[in-house]
Parts: sequence; structure tokens; C-alpha cells
Amino acid sequence: MKVGIVMGSKSDYPVVQRAESILDAFAVPYETHIISAHRTPSIAEGYASGAEAEGIEVIIAAAGKAAHLAGVLASYTPIPVIGLPVKSSTLDGLDSLLSIVQMPKGIPVATVAIDGAENAALLAVQILSLKYSDLREEMRVYKENMEREIIRADADFQNGKE
Amino acid sequence: MKVGIVMGSKSDYPVVQRAESILDAFAVPYETHIISAHRTPSIAEGYASGAEAEGIEVIIAAAGKAAHLAGVLASYTPIPVIGLPVKSSTLDGLDSLLSIVQMPKGIPVATVAIDGAENAALLAVQILSLKYSDLREEMRVYKENMEREIIRADADFQNGKE
Amino acid sequence: MKVGIVMGSKSDYPVVQRAESILDAFAVPYETHIISAHRTPSIAEGYASGAEAEGIEVIIAAAGKAAHLAGVLASYTPIPVIGLPVKSSTLDGLDSLLSIVQMPKGIPVATVAIDGAENAALLAVQILSLKYSDLREEMRVYKENMEREIIRADADFQNGKE
Amino acid sequence: MKVGIVMGSKSDYPVVQRAESILDAFAVPYETHIISAHRTPSIAEGYASGAEAEGIEVIIAAAGKAAHLAGVLASYTPIPVIGLPVKSSTLDGLDSLLSIVQMPKGIPVATVAIDGAENAALLAVQILSLKYSDLREEMRVYKENMEREIIRADADFQNGKE
Amino acid sequence: MKVGIVMGSKSDYPVVQRAESILDAFAVPYETHIISAHRTPSIAEGYASGAEAEGIEVIIAAAGKAAHLAGVLASYTPIPVIGLPVKSSTLDGLDSLLSIVQMPKGIPVATVAIDGAENAALLAVQILSLKYSDLREEMRVYKENMEREIIRADADFQNGKE
Amino acid sequence: MKVGIVMGSKSDYPVVQRAESILDAFAVPYETHIISAHRTPSIAEGYASGAEAEGIEVIIAAAGKAAHLAGVLASYTPIPVIGLPVKSSTLDGLDSLLSIVQMPKGIPVATVAIDGAENAALLAVQILSLKYSDLREEMRVYKENMEREIIRADADFQNGKE
Amino acid sequence: MKVGIVMGSKSDYPVVQRAESILDAFAVPYETHIISAHRTPSIAEGYASGAEAEGIEVIIAAAGKAAHLAGVLASYTPIPVIGLPVKSSTLDGLDSLLSIVQMPKGIPVATVAIDGAENAALLAVQILSLKYSDLREEMRVYKENMEREIIRADADFQNGKE
Amino acid sequence: MKVGIVMGSKSDYPVVQRAESILDAFAVPYETHIISAHRTPSIAEGYASGAEAEGIEVIIAAAGKAAHLAGVLASYTPIPVIGLPVKSSTLDGLDSLLSIVQMPKGIPVATVAIDGAENAALLAVQILSLKYSDLREEMRVYKENMEREIIRADADFQNGKE
Repeated sequence: MKVGIVMGSKSDYPVVQRAESILDAFAVPYETHIISAHRTPSIAEGYASGAEAEGIEVIIAAAGKAAHLAGVLASYTPIPVIGLPVKSSTLDGLDSLLSIVQMPKGIPVATVAIDGAENAALLAVQILSLKYSDLREEMRVYKENMEREIIRADADFQNGKE
Repeated sequence: MKVGIVMGSKSDYPVVQRAESILDAFAVPYETHIISAHRTPSIAEGYASGAEAEGIEVIIAAAGKAAHLAGVLASYTPIPVIGLPVKSSTLDGLDSLLSIVQMPKGIPVATVAIDGAENAALLAVQILSLKYSDLREEMRVYKENMEREIIRADADFQNGKE
Repeated sequence: MKVGIVMGSKSDYPVVQRAESILDAFAVPYETHIISAHRTPSIAEGYASGAEAEGIEVIIAAAGKAAHLAGVLASYTPIPVIGLPVKSSTLDGLDSLLSIVQMPKGIPVATVAIDGAENAALLAVQILSLKYSDLREEMRVYKENMEREIIRADADFQNGKE
Repeated sequence: MKVGIVMGSKSDYPVVQRAESILDAFAVPYETHIISAHRTPSIAEGYASGAEAEGIEVIIAAAGKAAHLAGVLASYTPIPVIGLPVKSSTLDGLDSLLSIVQMPKGIPVATVAIDGAENAALLAVQILSLKYSDLREEMRVYKENMEREIIRADADFQNGKE
Repeated sequence: MKVGIVMGSKSDYPVVQRAESILDAFAVPYETHIISAHRTPSIAEGYASGAEAEGIEVIIAAAGKAAHLAGVLASYTPIPVIGLPVKSSTLDGLDSLLSIVQMPKGIPVATVAIDGAENAALLAVQILSLKYSDLREEMRVYKENMEREIIRADADFQNGKE
Repeated sequence: MKVGIVMGSKSDYPVVQRAESILDAFAVPYETHIISAHRTPSIAEGYASGAEAEGIEVIIAAAGKAAHLAGVLASYTPIPVIGLPVKSSTLDGLDSLLSIVQMPKGIPVATVAIDGAENAALLAVQILSLKYSDLREEMRVYKENMEREIIRADADFQNGKE
Repeated sequence: MKVGIVMGSKSDYPVVQRAESILDAFAVPYETHIISAHRTPSIAEGYASGAEAEGIEVIIAAAGKAAHLAGVLASYTPIPVIGLPVKSSTLDGLDSLLSIVQMPKGIPVATVAIDGAENAALLAVQILSLKYSDLREEMRVYKENMEREIIRADADFQNGKE
Repeated sequence: MKVGIVMGSKSDYPVVQRAESILDAFAVPYETHIISAHRTPSIAEGYASGAEAEGIEVIIAAAGKAAHLAGVLASYTPIPVIGLPVKSSTLDGLDSLLSIVQMPKGIPVATVAIDGAENAALLAVQILSLKYSDLREEMRVYKENMEREIIRADADFQNGKE
């Protein structure tokens, strides 16, 4: 079981790191690479083409601006690719989002929110849990914990007001 | 193996039908329901809560405007939910897209392009193929066929021009 | 007489607090809860379903990003729900606004401006004033005071310039 | 009990008529007027200023483009004003929506979806139901009927597929 | 000869002040008032209705968000109204711009750029120069000075690089 | 007294014609030319530079897409230039609007709504009325007629409903 | 001398054909291929990698939605790549435009207007004219002809009005 | 061999300087001028008209807001003009981008990303390399270096994680 995380530039790492934390919490093995769809296209091709053989079962691709990384990887592999649009210095991430989500017919990319790194990882876990049933159980626990956190936050909030 | 397709309204069916065709082509069993996150919230909750027990492994949720369906279903189930934004009569689908893709931390929805029904189904197949390895092989064939179609289209185009 | 204020996350409180201040000024009782449409869906359902019985007459729901909270609450209750879109870190609140205001036919949400917490509370007061006629009178006074403030601000501005 | 419906132009009537139908269904009395915030500003002022005395308890204001009608009426009356953005020939209704929903602090307008006439009327009913408890009950029935319609639509859909 | 400057809120003054500076430079008399279309609608009406009699020949109206001020003033006076959209805390001024520029048929507002206070004043001068021919000449000089400034900036830039 | 109307292409004439009708109604002389900022830049320059000498007192410039025409003309003349953004085949006129209204400091363009040809002409009349006081009176009548039309439309509407 | 035109789908040809007409008019040789960045990624790579050796000096890449074609080709070749965003069924071409123009640092794509096929071809001619000086002369003639056409259109328009 | 860089204002230089650095790296001679399309239109015309005779082979034009500079220069010269949209204080550069890229038929501008100065320069180098074959070779080396940098960044990243 392994998730392949790919980011288009080192500068995307602060966002990507939040995805890694989630995978760590679920004890899902992952590898993270800096691969640019445009500056290292052959490496991107090689990575995607070889991913399945390397035991990678889901890819998370994070990129900004005209973010082609997720789509390019998806074109070379049959495994699911999750696209994580990264907000860049202009247009507030709308360019990243549209470049990732509006994929043409035939090559899907599972897109999450702009800078939504935790959700990219959680989606990877949900996908893996089809095969690895322990993860399904852990995801259920994770959801219950989230629920409890909100409940506790509300309780604390009620107490803080008194 | 089963995919649960849910649409917010009967009027979404012309789009959803293209997803069904893809699943038919892959011989992936599916059921399609009309469930509204807002008009039948309890049914939506019940559907999502019970989906796993019913053997559903991936959900595709199609909706337009303030499209909460995918997010609402995702909040009640640990299985992957694919969000399919449907273009409505105003704003060209931007409202549907943002209402689906911009999910807050904790509850991911795997979003595809506006009206991108085929990709929603192909993503479901890719996710299922983690567990059902035959689908992985069929997906590879599907991608090769797409490639061949483009190659043939180009060949026909070249011939047509002479 | 009671207003139910619900926010999707503790981080929305700085905005929500401005709504509370308005309700305080009108001496309208209210309760404020942290309830997430996605992380605590059952609590959201329970809260909305039971709101009327609890004596809540208007709900204000504040949320950001793919902001489903107002719509989800509205689907479970016949009382008016006011949606308050909160600006999040990307897209400048446009995602919150569209996710709240573009509700499909059948389930209205009374939407106010992005981060427009004061107006959410004032709208609640206006709605309550149908039943509680004292509030109608206070609202009239409030509007006159606003008018006087602008008049005084202009007077001060004229004097300051001399 | 009376709802005042105001539209900026005769051309808005096809949209506004759908609000009238909802009010008819709930047997809520209403009057509909063509009043332009810009071409008949004094009439707009007079209408809003006198609305309360005329027994109007909620106003629905429908307008397109730089849609000031709802805000102008709201500035002259303490009763709730519902803003209904009408899609015009350019910008797909975004101008109407922003001109109505982004009201500055102090003067709220309860905004519904672009061309969302039914929801404008339903919101009016929900507001009136604070005072007229029969309407609360009717709204509950309306919601149940909506639920039943979706359930039947799904049942028909399931049958149609066999 | 007099220009009437109206701003919806004291907080708009840092932008409006740049318009005043331009009018000072052209020695065009002006008065500046804080008048809110929504909070002091009667004063807005009174100001616009009486502007012509007060010797005001052009009005500059600055406002943000759902910026109705310019349109409301224009509805009550036959003199030209210049709309100055002010950037607010969300949506980067797009709401202000559309609320001002998209005026319906019959009531024009001469709109300038978001926060384009200098241009609002220069446009006022250009309009006044139809009647006051000295201003036409001064405007010509102003344009020549702008040209010279750019030429000098370029010359300085060339020298600075050597 | 003369208005110079310039359109970037013959295809803009259906929109521009509505401006001519308004000027006809006010008996304001005008001339209409096809001049492209990009395809006939020297003619654009010549036209704008010579406009004042030709007795033109206001220019209306209609163009679509990256609509530079109004700005280019404004750079060559001290007389007021009204920009009329024309909706083109993509982006619903947003490109035209932003290209015209967002003029940098120093060169104002008085911008009206997308396809708002009538308002462009009415604004020209309002500007001319500073100098030609008959037009001021006619504008007052025009506004009164508009008011009467709305009043009559409302009266007809009330009658039609009985 | 040769231009390589690539389109992502046969359905882009009605737009692309207008580029071919321009190249025909300049007698610039070209070849047109259907190559999909996502469905035939290896062919896209091969085409771009080999373009220079095949004597192609400029590439025009037309694609819609999440339009990666131009960027993918540009990543594999040092020759100039012109990106032609094609309007698709949703979002009015904004997705195509942003996916092409917002290329990250290092890999430029020379982007033209949405559906601006003629300009893509004219830009190719302008680029080629650095090396082939005859084209420079022809481009000058082309510009003069455009100028004459506008002048004649204006003359016809003046005559038609009399 | 010479590139002409033109910026609309001194304030654009921090962006433009990054283009100069790229040209320095390729030892491509360039000159940089401050020329405003609107404030110094005659100089803009003169510069563009005379560029070819001065030995300039490509122009880079940087401007913000209603950015007409690139289009105005392109209208006066047959040589390629690269448009560099500069992000201004409102609308996040969308106005600059649309004003530059949406050029009407006949006058192309090769547009790069908002604030994408390096890509403007790299595109200029790619265009010049049609004629100056040494640059083609250097571009190839540049691309290889970029590739190596990403590879090294990834290697460093892998090491840094251990």
C-alpha cells in the first residue's frame, strides 16, 4: 500500500505537508516527489507510467497556476489521480482549480478544494479503504473523532460564554 | 461490486445517463436514484448511511446550483463520493462546481468537470479497480482504445484533406 | 422569542459575534452553537428538526467555502433560515456566497452579504418584528439612529474641513 | 396579511409570476406592482414608506442588472424585504445578484437565487408563519409534499428502468 | 461652477480625497458630503433633487459593495452623475463596479475604474469644460504635463541604468 | 453641437443604433464612424485629435473584447469620451467592460453598462446640457416621461389582472 | 518553413480552420493534426520532441476546457508554441484561457483570445517573418488591407446613411 | 538583435526586471522604456512605428488595469508583440489579462501569464531563435538546466526527509 504524492514545485510543500500529516495519522505509506509537468515532462511521464509497478495505488498531484500536473500524470496511468489545486499569487487559485477540474472526457482527475491538502489525503484513504478494510474502520473512527471535536468545541464555547 | 448514482432531480438524468453508459461499458453494476439533499434530507441520510451495508463501494452524486448533495452524502458515509456538478440555467455551472469542490477540511468530495458525467464514471471504475483487478486491465484497454480513436481520427482527418 | 445562531466552525466566531452584538442591542434572546453540516450532520439535523419545539423562531447559519450549513438546516425545518456567507482563505467568499444563495427550488435561504453579520441579525429582528411589535418600533428607532449617525458624521466632516 | 411584490420592469413578470403561483397555493394575499427604483424613485419611496400602513408585512423585490430596487425599498421601511435577482442579457445574473446581496451594514435584504422566484415566495410564507401559525402548518405540509414528489419521482424512475 | 462629491461612508474618504486633490489642482469648487443611499435615503433624494438649484453641475458619487448611491442620485437629477466604485473587503471591488456600471436603460451613471478617484475628478473637469472653456485649456495643459512626466520618467530611467 | 459616435466594427451597429435613436429623440446632431483602434490606429488618432476642432463636444466609443477604442480616443482629446462595452461571443461582455472601465489614472473614460447604448446617448445629452440649457429641460421631460411610462405600465398591469 | 497546427479534438476544427485560412492567404505551409494531450500523451510528446527536426518552426495548439495541450507541447520543444483557447460548453472559455495562459515560469505559451484562431495564425506569420523577410512585407500589406477595409466599411456606412 | 521592452509606468519595473534578467542570461540585447499608451500616445505610436527600423525584432509590453499598451503597439508594427499583464491593486490582474489577450481579429498579441515576466522574455528568446540559431541551442540548454534543477530539488528534498 503506497500513495504517491507529487508537487510541481518545492514551494507547494507547505500545503502538501498537511496531506502528509493525514497519511501519517492513518499510517498510510507514501512517497513525495517534486516533479514538474512542464520542466521535467519525461520524469512526469516515467513516474506515472511506472507508478502501478512501483506499488503506488493512488497519486496526489499538487500544482498551481495552469496546473497541468494532475492531468498529465492521469494520462499515463490507470490508477486514480487526485488533483490538489494550489493557490498562487494571482487569481486566488481559480486558475489552478479550473486547470485541474475541467478535464476533458476520458481522463478524470478527482479534484479537491483549493489548498485542500487534508481532503486530498482523506480521499486517498477512502479510495485505499476499498481494498484495505482496516482503513475503512479507521476512517469511520476519524469521522467520529471529527464529530466529537466539533461537539467538544461547542461545549467549550457554551462554557466559555457563561 | 456496485456504484450508487444519485441525482438531485430528474432533470439531471440526461447528464447522468452518460455516466451510466460508461459503467455499462465496464460491466460495473450500479443503481441510480433521485434523492434531493434539500427536499428529501432524511432519505439522503439514510441512503448514505446504509450505502456501505448495501454493498455500494463508490457513490456518484450529480447536482446543480447550490449543489449540496455530494457533500451531504459524504458526511454520512466513509466510502468515496464523486461529485458531478451539473450546469444550471444561470452562472454556467460555476455555482455547482464551487458548491461541490470547495468542501471544508475533513469531508472530501472527488469532483469532476461541470457536466463531466463520463469522467465521474471512469473515476469510479479507477477507484473500484484497486479492489477488482480485472477493472484495472479493462481501464488500460479503455485508455488504449481512446488513444487509437484519436489516432484514427487524425488519420481520417489527414485522408479527408487530400 | 429566540434566535438560533449556528456557525460551522469556531473560526467563524469573529464574524458571528457582530451578529450577536446587534441582537444584544435589540435585547433579542439567542443561543449560539458550533455545528458542522459535514462533520456533525446528525446534530445539524437534530438541531434543525427540534428548533421550532425549542422556541427558536429564526435561524442564522454562518459558514464558509462549500457552505452547506444553511441549506442543510433549512431542509429540516419550516422556520426561516438566514444564510451568512463567511469569507474563507481563497476565492474571496464567492464560493460561500454561491453555495448559500443559489438554493434550488423549494428550500429558500435568506442570504445576506459576505461577512455581513450585522445584516443577518437585523434581518432576524425584522422577521421577528412581524410577531413582536415592540421590535418593529425598535427597528424604526434603529434606522433613525443610523440616519442621525450619518448626518452627524457629515456635520463633523464639514466642521473638520473648515 | 399581505405580501407586496414589486418588479422593476414588466419584463420581469415571467419570473415574478412563479412567485405569485406559490403565494396562490398558500392562499397568501399579495399585490404586484411595477415600480422602478430609478425611473420612478418617488413612487418607490412612497410605496416602501407606506407599505406597513397598507398592511403589507413582507416585500418581494425583483430586478435585474444594477438591481437597486430591493435596497431602495429596504431603506424606506422596517419590514423585511426579499430580493429576487433577475438574470439579464449579460453577465448571467451575477450583476443582479451582487447588487442585491452585497448590501452595506444596516439595511439587510434577504436574497434568494438568481431567478429563484418560488423561493422568494416560500421565504415570504416562512416569515409570515411567525405570526400566522396556519402557514407554519401549511409549510410543513408543503415540505412533506415536496418530499413525496421526489420519492414518487424516484419510484417512477426505478419502474421506468425495468 | 461647482462639483458635488458624495460618499456613502466616512471610510470612503481616503479614496475620495484623491478626487478632491485633482479638483483643487484645476481650481474647480466642490463640496463633499457623507450621504448614504440606504441609511439616509431622504437626504440623498433631497441632495440630488436640489443639486441643480444649488449650482452643482456634476455629481461624483463614491460607494462600495452593493453601491446604489450613484444610481439613486441619478434617478433624482438631470445633471451628469459620475460613479466611483470603491473596493470593499470582499470581492475586490467587482460588486461595487457592477452595482454602479450596469444601470438599466434610462438612468446613466458615468462609471470610472474601481478606486479611480482621480479619473472621476478629471471626468468632471472634462464635462465642465464644455461650458467653462478655461478648463478645456487647463485640461490640455494637464495632459501635456502628464506626457512630460512620462517622458521625464523614461529619461530618468535611461540615465539611472547607465 | 455635435456628438461623435465611433464603433470598432460594423457589427457593433445594431447596438450603436439604439444610441442614435436617443440622440434623434433629443434632436442632438451626431455623426457615426467605423474606426478601429487596432486596424486603423492613425485614423483613430486623427479623429480624436481633430474632434474638438470639428465641433464635436462628446465622443461615444463602442467596442468589444479587448476594447481599447474609447481609451485610445480619450488619450488624444480633452473632450469627454463615453465608453460603451459591446458584448462579444465569449465572456459575456466582461472583457469589454473591464478593458474600458479600468482606465489608468489620468485618462478617464465614462463607462456605461454592457450593450447600454441608450444610456451612452443619454449621458452625452446630460453632458451637453451643461452648455445647452434646452437639453437640460428636455432631459427633465424625458425623465418625467419615463416615470409616466412606468406608472402607465403598472396601471395597465393592474387592469390586466382584473 | 512550416507551421504545425495541433488540435485536441476533431470538434475544434471549425475554429482551427480559420487559422488555416490565414496561413493559406500568406502561403505559409502547415500541417494539421488531431493530438490529445491526455488521450494520446506519447504522440503529443513525440510530435513536440520531433517538431524541430521535421522543419516545424512554430506550433499552434488549440484546445478547450482544462486545455493542457499547448503547455504539454511546449514542455517538449524549444520552438515557440501559440496557445489557442477554444470555448467549450461551460464557463464560456474562461477555463480554456486560464489553463493556457497561466503557464508557470520557464515554459511560455504565446496565448491569443478565446476562439481567436485568425490571430493565432497571424502571430505565427509575425514570428516566421523574423526569418522569412518576405512574410514581413506581406504582413505589412495585410495590415494596410485591414486598414483599407475599415476605411471602405466606414465610407460605405456613410453612403448607406444618406 | 534587439528586444524592445516597454512598460506603462515606472511602477511596473519590479516585474519587468525579471524579464531583463532572463534576457541578460541569454545575452540578448534589449532596451527598456517607460511609454504610456494613454499618457504618451504619440510616443507609443512613434516607438512602435519605428521599432523595426531601429532593429527591434520583438516587443515586450507590460501594463496593468485596462492594459492597452501591447495592443496599441501591435497596431503600429508588423513585428511580434508580447503582452505581459501586470497585476494591479484590484481584480487580481484579471482586468489586465483580458485587456491584453482578448484582442480582436487582425492584431494578435502573444500574451503570457499575469506577472509572468520571465516567460515573456523566454518567449522573446524562442521567437528570436528562429533567426538566431545559437539562441535555439541556448534555449535547449536552459530547458535542460530547468530539468536538472527540479531533479536536484527533488533529490535534496528526498535527502532532507531522511
